[in-house]
Amino acid sequence: MTGNMSRRRAIALAGAGAAGVAGVAAGAGALVRVATEHASADPGAASGAVPFHGEHQAGITTPAQDRLHFVAFDVITKDRARLVELLQEWTAAAARMTAGKDAGVLGAVGGVPEAPPDDTGEALGLPPSQLTLTVGFGPTLFRDAQGRDRFGIADRRPPALADLPHFAGDALRPEISGGDLCVQACANDPQVAVHAIRNLARIGMGVVSVRWSQLGFGRTSSTSRDQATPRNLFGFKDGTANLKAEDAGLLRDQLWVQPGDGPDWMTGGSYLVTRKIRMLIETWDRSPLAEQEQIVGRAKGTGAPLGRTGEFDDPDFAARGDDGQPVIAETAHVRLAHPAQNDGAHLLRRGYNFVDGSDGLGRLDAGLFFIAYQRDPRRQFVPTQTRLSRQDAMNEYLRHVSSGLFACPPGVRDGGDHWGRALFA
Amino acid sequence: MTGNMSRRRAIALAGAGAAGVAGVAAGAGALVRVATEHASADPGAASGAVPFHGEHQAGITTPAQDRLHFVAFDVITKDRARLVELLQEWTAAAARMTAGKDAGVLGAVGGVPEAPPDDTGEALGLPPSQLTLTVGFGPTLFRDAQGRDRFGIADRRPPALADLPHFAGDALRPEISGGDLCVQACANDPQVAVHAIRNLARIGMGVVSVRWSQLGFGRTSSTSRDQATPRNLFGFKDGTANLKAEDAGLLRDQLWVQPGDGPDWMTGGSYLVTRKIRMLIETWDRSPLAEQEQIVGRAKGTGAPLGRTGEFDDPDFAARGDDGQPVIAETAHVRLAHPAQNDGAHLLRRGYNFVDGSDGLGRLDAGLFFIAYQRDPRRQFVPTQTRLSRQDAMNEYLRHVSSGLFACPPGVRDGGDHWGRALFA
Repeated sequence: MTGNMSRRRAIALAGAGAAGVAGVAAGAGALVRVATEHASADPGAASGAVPFHGEHQAGITTPAQDRLHFVAFDVITKDRARLVELLQEWTAAAARMTAGKDAGVLGAVGGVPEAPPDDTGEALGLPPSQLTLTVGFGPTLFRDAQGRDRFGIADRRPPALADLPHFAGDALRPEISGGDLCVQACANDPQVAVHAIRNLARIGMGVVSVRWSQLGFGRTSSTSRDQATPRNLFGFKDGTANLKAEDAGLLRDQLWVQPGDGPDWMTGGSYLVTRKIRMLIETWDRSPLAEQEQIVGRAKGTGAPLGRTGEFDDPDFAARGDDGQPVIAETAHVRLAHPAQNDGAHLLRRGYNFVDGSDGLGRLDAGLFFIAYQRDPRRQFVPTQTRLSRQDAMNEYLRHVSSGLFACPPGVRDGGDHWGRALFA
Repeated sequence: MTGNMSRRRAIALAGAGAAGVAGVAAGAGALVRVATEHASADPGAASGAVPFHGEHQAGITTPAQDRLHFVAFDVITKDRARLVELLQEWTAAAARMTAGKDAGVLGAVGGVPEAPPDDTGEALGLPPSQLTLTVGFGPTLFRDAQGRDRFGIADRRPPALADLPHFAGDALRPEISGGDLCVQACANDPQVAVHAIRNLARIGMGVVSVRWSQLGFGRTSSTSRDQATPRNLFGFKDGTANLKAEDAGLLRDQLWVQPGDGPDWMTGGSYLVTRKIRMLIETWDRSPLAEQEQIVGRAKGTGAPLGRTGEFDDPDFAARGDDGQPVIAETAHVRLAHPAQNDGAHLLRRGYNFVDGSDGLGRLDAGLFFIAYQRDPRRQFVPTQTRLSRQDAMNEYLRHVSSGLFACPPGVRDGGDHWGRALFA
């Protein structure tokens, strides 16, 4: 029975144990000890668990969950062994939390009555909620801004992890860009995603420091044909032409790093680009519908490419209207971003909407936290964004304020494997 | 059939209409016109609708939804008639959106092909999601910071809407405090809550300006006995002793403004206090469990008051341990906040957790957006918070960074009524 116990049941037991010794320091370990039971397996459901171990990391082709907490860390230790130890601890905690358990016993603190709890507790009683935790390594982990090879891995930096160029119009804020490490937490309950990031940060105290973090809601892309296409804050369906989990051939060509692409430790991994894109929604909301549709290149209602009738109809980029003008404008977003117009370059997008309060100028601070996975940013994100940044009619309503690039290694195979094992081997 | 059509169906029709005229400005009104149909009624379900009209405003005793978008506005017009007109427009839009419809046709823009859409679109296809919209009027609406009676209502300011005093330890940021008007949007889908606030802001352009706004998740209180008590970011159950919808006698005594309490326009209303409380969670996470439980006065597992066994057991404030010390410390949060220790003063709390990214110092910017409704803050929130601010052991881990006070009028009775009708009559 204990082998199949939910977080809710575990905490009820833990509480019963703790109540008898309430207020007595010697009993404080009871919560920690008991609340480490297994979550009930409920795969497939929105509240169920997504397997943590596998060939690839979860959280990439996993059907996009509804909520995001993304964090970028700076490594503040100079001690390579300590960093590797943290990656081991994180892997163990990630395996536990994605299964709906607490962050677990990680070292000596677990059984000591006067020690802090091994888990912060705010997700106790909540199901796994399809939590996935996906790790990535930033360029500065290999060689920092001062050019130092802090951890002896500079020669393992993949050529594909080349710093992104400056794009036209970029208004990047360095303090919310980059990072040595990142973790993407996606779940159907924000409390579960926040709990996971918070506990990883807690476990990393003294080794890493939170550089920036971002919450998101309302996935803006589908990553599976089973999902309906959601809408972004411009009110348009977003991600219709996204790379999807069912596209096995395209995933191999466009998403997963293949043998020979670069260093072996990245084979089976993927490169992640994040862009925080502020949307000037008040200005957008004042634009006529027809203008909005011209900018996007799709009908706002159906999501169909202009001139076609169904959302998934292929756009006809050659079509011209009675006035001789292209039905889909030369500067329309759908034209410039489409794989057919970018030498077949696809991206697997799984971005989220964000609202970070207001900006002090009477406007909501809102937009899209863009997330895209790919086999090689030099052939995929970079040329596509170069084109978009120069020509996209939508740029008038967008500001790119944060940028991140990370090498996400392949999946953790089993309990003996850990995040970064091959990189630091 | 049209009388019972969901947002999803409406937009499908709208799209079909729009596709035939794609790219043609003359057809741009089609989306607007068609996408104004009725949502299917699905009351009770998490995706259903909460009635907008009634004796009291919804969003107070309504079982707390999972997500929040709260906004405070400054009124930037000097024209009383324009302000009243906006309140009428907002009421119509709120009635529509809480029923799962779009923000609707509000004036001349609706049918004009080259006008902006009447709705921003990002909630099209989404159910009502128990959206509630609750309006409040701040002290500065009655008399601004310069002492001006801008709208001829200074003599209608209720005595209970007295500016909050400075509390010990307050670290309030004026730019995210106060406001002439507020709207609390609660829903089970953040996209629905954000959509509602954004459309109210859009409708209010030129009349009001967003002063500050806050997103929240994971309700931190129950407002009904049917709800399980959730956990805050300290990992503790929060709101166990909250005023609940089933406590009819207490609601009359403690929540709803009664005849004779003040100006008639507030009878049936309630006063709202908001406090954005940053939690220093990294410091908290380093505290031993026993110390955390002493500070809160409850067991972390069950939520039971120390020395008792069940979450809903009454705390025994007189009990002493073998060492002669109180089982629940004199400085414990549960003691200082409990109605029994505050002349019976109850609050109806319906706060939310927040994470606003990180603070630039390697920490998450996270905490509790505290929301409390009450009959008279002078007898309820103010004395309770005065006591807490001076003695609560938890203060070491808290910073109050924003504060708001609003008079929330009674409910809108029917289609002929509107927000602020009695106040501006």
